[in-house]
Amino acid sequence: MRHHFFAFALVCGGFIAGACSSGSGKPGGVAATGGGTVAELMKARGLSEADVNAALKTYTPTGRPDEYYLFGSGGHSGQVVVIGLPSMRILKYIAVFTPEPWQGYGFDDQTKAVLAGGDRHGKPQTWADTHHPALSETAGDYDGQYLFIGDKAGARVAVIDLKDFTTKQIVTSRVMQSDHGAAFVTPNTEYIVEGSQYPAPLGDGEYADVAQFKEKYRGAAVFWKFDRKKGRIDEAASFLIELPPYVQDLSDAGKLGSEGFVFMNSINTELAYGGVLEGNPPMESGMSQNDMDYLHVIDWKKAEQLVAAGKTKLIKGFKVLPLEVVAAEGVLHFVPEPKSPHGVDVAPNGDDIVVGGKLDTHATVYSFKKIKALIDAKKYAGKDPYGVPILAFEEAIRGQAELGLGPLHTVFDDKGYAYTSLFLETVVAKWSLADLKVTQKLPSSYNIGHLTTAEGDTVSPDGRYLVAMNKWALDRFAPVGPLLPQNFQLVDISTDQMQLLYDLPIPLGEPHYAQIIKGDKIKAENIYSPVGYDPIKDAVSEHAVEGGKERIERRADGVHVYMTAIRSHFTPDIVRVKKGEKVFIHITNIEQAHDATHGFAIDSYNINLSLEPGEHADVTFVADVPGVFPLYCTEFCSALHLEMAGYLLVEP
Amino acid sequence: MRHHFFAFALVCGGFIAGACSSGSGKPGGVAATGGGTVAELMKARGLSEADVNAALKTYTPTGRPDEYYLFGSGGHSGQVVVIGLPSMRILKYIAVFTPEPWQGYGFDDQTKAVLAGGDRHGKPQTWADTHHPALSETAGDYDGQYLFIGDKAGARVAVIDLKDFTTKQIVTSRVMQSDHGAAFVTPNTEYIVEGSQYPAPLGDGEYADVAQFKEKYRGAAVFWKFDRKKGRIDEAASFLIELPPYVQDLSDAGKLGSEGFVFMNSINTELAYGGVLEGNPPMESGMSQNDMDYLHVIDWKKAEQLVAAGKTKLIKGFKVLPLEVVAAEGVLHFVPEPKSPHGVDVAPNGDDIVVGGKLDTHATVYSFKKIKALIDAKKYAGKDPYGVPILAFEEAIRGQAELGLGPLHTVFDDKGYAYTSLFLETVVAKWSLADLKVTQKLPSSYNIGHLTTAEGDTVSPDGRYLVAMNKWALDRFAPVGPLLPQNFQLVDISTDQMQLLYDLPIPLGEPHYAQIIKGDKIKAENIYSPVGYDPIKDAVSEHAVEGGKERIERRADGVHVYMTAIRSHFTPDIVRVKKGEKVFIHITNIEQAHDATHGFAIDSYNINLSLEPGEHADVTFVADVPGVFPLYCTEFCSALHLEMAGYLLVEP
Repeated sequence: MRHHFFAFALVCGGFIAGACSSGSGKPGGVAATGGGTVAELMKARGLSEADVNAALKTYTPTGRPDEYYLFGSGGHSGQVVVIGLPSMRILKYIAVFTPEPWQGYGFDDQTKAVLAGGDRHGKPQTWADTHHPALSETAGDYDGQYLFIGDKAGARVAVIDLKDFTTKQIVTSRVMQSDHGAAFVTPNTEYIVEGSQYPAPLGDGEYADVAQFKEKYRGAAVFWKFDRKKGRIDEAASFLIELPPYVQDLSDAGKLGSEGFVFMNSINTELAYGGVLEGNPPMESGMSQNDMDYLHVIDWKKAEQLVAAGKTKLIKGFKVLPLEVVAAEGVLHFVPEPKSPHGVDVAPNGDDIVVGGKLDTHATVYSFKKIKALIDAKKYAGKDPYGVPILAFEEAIRGQAELGLGPLHTVFDDKGYAYTSLFLETVVAKWSLADLKVTQKLPSSYNIGHLTTAEGDTVSPDGRYLVAMNKWALDRFAPVGPLLPQNFQLVDISTDQMQLLYDLPIPLGEPHYAQIIKGDKIKAENIYSPVGYDPIKDAVSEHAVEGGKERIERRADGVHVYMTAIRSHFTPDIVRVKKGEKVFIHITNIEQAHDATHGFAIDSYNINLSLEPGEHADVTFVADVPGVFPLYCTEFCSALHLEMAGYLLVEP
Repeated sequence: MRHHFFAFALVCGGFIAGACSSGSGKPGGVAATGGGTVAELMKARGLSEADVNAALKTYTPTGRPDEYYLFGSGGHSGQVVVIGLPSMRILKYIAVFTPEPWQGYGFDDQTKAVLAGGDRHGKPQTWADTHHPALSETAGDYDGQYLFIGDKAGARVAVIDLKDFTTKQIVTSRVMQSDHGAAFVTPNTEYIVEGSQYPAPLGDGEYADVAQFKEKYRGAAVFWKFDRKKGRIDEAASFLIELPPYVQDLSDAGKLGSEGFVFMNSINTELAYGGVLEGNPPMESGMSQNDMDYLHVIDWKKAEQLVAAGKTKLIKGFKVLPLEVVAAEGVLHFVPEPKSPHGVDVAPNGDDIVVGGKLDTHATVYSFKKIKALIDAKKYAGKDPYGVPILAFEEAIRGQAELGLGPLHTVFDDKGYAYTSLFLETVVAKWSLADLKVTQKLPSSYNIGHLTTAEGDTVSPDGRYLVAMNKWALDRFAPVGPLLPQNFQLVDISTDQMQLLYDLPIPLGEPHYAQIIKGDKIKAENIYSPVGYDPIKDAVSEHAVEGGKERIERRADGVHVYMTAIRSHFTPDIVRVKKGEKVFIHITNIEQAHDATHGFAIDSYNINLSLEPGEHADVTFVADVPGVFPLYCTEFCSALHLEMAGYLLVEP
C-alpha cells in the first residue's frame, strides 16, 4: 500500500492514450493522499474486475449531485425514502404518515392538521403502510412537481410537494377499509387512483359478518381529483367506483392510445375470506383455487361523465358510483388473467398491458387495441355474478412470455425490453416486447418484489438503471439482529447484458414500489421565501413575526408568544406563564441562508419544531405542568448553538 | 463504453505483475457485463485519480459485510443510526425514543412499556434529542454487547442490546430537566454517566424564577448503575451528583491511570440565563464573557463510597449527593479551561485530557497525573462560590496545541495522533500528542461538529478510518428542499496524510456523536429462540402460542386471542368481538428461519407489530369502533404474502 501511483497513470504511459487528461498531471497529489495502484487495491480489498467496474460506475465524488432520484415507499415506516442514483446514497426520508421529529412533522399545528386529515374512524393513525409512490405526470412524462403515495392500512393517499419535499395533504375516503393499488396517476395527473385491497362493507362503521362476503363486502377504486394549481387533492371533485369483492391488487393508468383507462387486477374470484378456526381454508389457499382471475378495465372518462351526470350516491359524504351503474354503463369490463396476478404494467407504447401471474409462469401481454375493439363491439364472453361484462382472454391478448417461477412486476427500458421480477426464482428476467422471448436472467439477493427503471413508467423511459427491490437480505450485509434490511440492487441496463452494480441495505421500512426520475426535473427550493412562509398554507403566515417585533401578548384565549429564531438566539428567550394557561407560540426563522435551519424544543412538553430558513410555524399547548423547562435549538446552527436557549417558566 | 476490457488487464500484461491473479482469467465475463477500461470509466464519469482510489477503498461487493459498524446518534429523530464502514451504507435505524412502526416499536405492549419508562412529568414523550452514543466497555475496550444513548430534551438514557439491536430500557432521574453529556461509560461499564445541560431547580415540578438562577438552579450528573447480567440499568443503585449551575457540557470517563474519574466541562461561569426582552443579553453573549470556565474533575469512586455511606438525600425518590457534600468531600474539583469549551476527551494513554475551547484557538492538554497530585496535596488556587476547590490552570496542564478557529472535539488514532474538529475553520486538524504540533488540516464540507475514529474511545484505537460529522451540507448533494441532510465524510487515516474517501448524506435526523467498533465484536442473533421469545422480557413469554394451540378465549377481563403467524397465514384469521370489549392479542411468529419476519396490522385501529422469527408480542386495545377491519401481514414474507390476512369484526 506504499506505492503511491496509479495503474491508470501507467496505462497513460503505456497502452491507452486520450482518456488520461483529468488526473495524470498531479501524481504527486495522489501520492500525498495514500494511494495505491488499481491492482494493489484490488488485491488488498479482494475486488474482482467486475467490482472495479461497478465501483467506478457508482462512486460519486464529493459535491457531485446524483443523476437520478429514486422515490421509494417506506413500507410500514409510513414514510418515503429518496435515493440518489448511481451512488445509491439515501438523500432523505420524507415524513408522510408517521410523525417524525427531526422534520418537526406532527409536532407543529400545521403538520398536526395534515395528519388529522388521515384520521380513521375518529382515531389518529400514527403509522401507515406506504406502498406505491407515483410522480406527477404531464403528457405521460414525469414533471417533477409532486409525489403521491398510498397507505394500505389506512386507505389513505398523501400529496408531497417536491419543491420542498414536504407532505402537504393526507386524504381518505372513509368508504374503503384498505387499499393497495395506490397511488397511480393518469397521464396529466387529472386523477390519483387508489384501489382497494381487502373487501369490506362500504363506509366507515358499516358492519356485516364476513359470511356475507359476497353480498355485503365490496372492492372499490377512488379517483382523487388533483388540483394542480393549488397543489392539493380536491376531495369534493373526487369519486369512488364500487367494485365486486375480488380483492383488487395493483393498477396502472393507460397512456397514449389507452389514455382514459385504468387497468387493475384482482386475485380472488373465489370470494374466499379465510376462517381457519371455522373450517375454512386460510386466504392463501382459498384465493388460489381458480386458474383465472379478472383484469379490471376501467373507463375513467366515462365514469367522470356519469359522476357529472349525477349517477352517484353518497357514502360518508363521498360520491360513489354504484356497482350496478358501473356494470351497466360500460365503466368496467373484465378480462380473465392467469393466476393470482400481482402487477399490471402498461408499456411505454400505451398498448401492451403486461400482467404477471404470481402462480403462473408467464407474463401475459394484453393489447389495448384488441380490448377496446371488443368493448366497442360489445363482444362479451359472459358476465360475472355482479353483471360486469367479461371479454374473452384469447381475443384480448397479444401473447404470453414464458418467464419462470413467480412473476410479479414488469418495468420497461428505452430499447423495447421488459424486465419482470420473478419472486420464487429470485431473478430479474429481461425479455423482448417484440418477440416475448427472454434474453437474460440476473439473480437477485434475494426474493425480489418490485423493480423499477429510470423514468420507467413514462411514455419515454431512460433505460440506464434498474433497481431490484429484494424482500430478503439474509447474508448480504453485516448482521443487525433478527429484523433485516431489504436489499436494493442497482443494475446497469445500458448494455446488452444486465450488470449488478451495487447492494444498498434499506435501514428503515420495507419499501414496495419506487419510481426513478431524472435529477434535473426536480426544482427543489433551498429556502422559504418570503420570510414567515407557512409550508402547509403555501403562503406567508398571518402570524409571521418580523425581527424587532417580537412580543408576548396576553389575550382572552391565552398567552401568545411572537418569537423569532436567528443565529444564535430566540427572541423572546424567557416565557413566563401560569399553570393552566393556554400558550400559542408563533415562531419565525428569520434566516434566509441556505441550510440555516433551527429547531425549537421545550423539554418535557413534547414540543419540537424544525424551522427551515424563512419558515414560520405555530404550536399550541396548555401549560398544565408547573416547573422550569429549558427551551433550545435542536439543530446545530453555529459555534454558539448550545447557547441558543431559554426557559419556559410555568408558575404553579 | 463498448470496449469490454480493463486497464487492469492491460497493466497485468504490461508493467505490474503479481497482483493480477484475482480477475484476469475471466475477461470474457467482464466483457459480458458491459465493462469499460478504468481510463474510459474515468473519462465517462469525470473521475480523478483520487476518486478512483477512494472508490476502490470503499466499494464493498455484494455479500461482503462491512469491516466496522458506526453507531451514531439520530439527533432529534430520537433514534440511532448504524452505518457500515468502509462502504458507508446505513445498515439500520434503531428505534430508541421515538415510536417507529416498521420495527413495531411503541405499538406492542412490550415496547409501549419501554417508552413509558421515559415519560416526563406524567407526559408521554414521542421524540427525543439523542446526542452521544456509548458502547459498553470491558477493561476500557468496546465489548460489543450494549449501546447507551442520552436524550438531551427529556434527560433520559436508553439501553440498546446489540444481540438484537433493540432498545430494552429507557430511564430518567426526574431530577434534571435536560442533559447533554450523555451517555459516557466507565471502563468496565460500571456506570453510564449523564451530565445535565441547562440548569433548573432539581426535581420535576420544582419552580423558581430564573432570576434565582444562582441560588436555586443547579447542574447535575447522574451515575446510572449498569447490571450487566440483566442487561439493564439498576435505577435503585444509581445516584446523582448535584453541581453548580455552570451549564455542564460534554464528559468523558477516565481510563487506565485516570480510571475512577469523570471529566466534564462547562460553559457558563458567568451564570447567564438569557432574557433578551428583559434587558439581559441572550445566552450566546451572556455565557461568552469570561476567559475561563471550569473543567469538572469528578471522583466517582469516592462518590460511590459516600452514597454507600448514606450521604444522599432523596429527590423524586432518586438518590442525590448534595453539592455541599460533593464540594466538601473531594468528589469534585475544578480546573480552569479556556473559553467556552465543548469537548473533553481522554486520550488512549489515560493521562492526557484534551479540551477544545470553542472560542479559543487551542486544544488544551491536561495531565491527569498533575491534577491528581494537586488534589492529593490539596493544593488549591481558590474555591468557587459554591465551595468547590479550584486547581491552578498552569499547574494542571501539559501544554496547549495551537489549532485554529473553533476547536470542538478531539479523537485519537493508534499512532499517537489526535484529530480535532475546527467548526469555524471547517477542517479536521491532525496533531501529534507528543509535541502538540499540527501536521495536516483536511477541509470538511461543511462546519464539522463531532468526529470519530475506529475504536477511538478505547485504550487501543484502531486508526484506519475517521468520520467527520458535518453540520451543513449545502452543495454536496442533489437538492432535497430547505431541510438538508448532514454530511458524514469518511477519511482514510491509515497513512501519513488524511485522505477523503466518501460523502454520506444522513437522510433522517441530525446526528451528534458516533462510535466505531470492529465488526467481529458484534454478535448479533438472527432469530429469537426458543420460539415465543419476548425481547423486552428477554425470556419466553408466558403468553407464547404454540402451533396447533391457537384459540380465542373469552374471560372476565376481555377477549384473549392466542394467535400464530407462519408463511402465509394467521391462526385464527377471523376475530369476532362486540363493540366495547377489551381485546388482548397474544401473537407468536413460530418461524425459525432467518429473515422470516411477519408484520401484524389491524386497519384503522392503529395496530402494527413487527414479529421477527420466534418473537412473541402482545397488544391490548378496546374495540371501541364498530365495523369490519382487515388484519394482515405488513412484511412481504412469501409469494402469497398478500393473502396473509383476515378480519377483525366488531359488532355494533
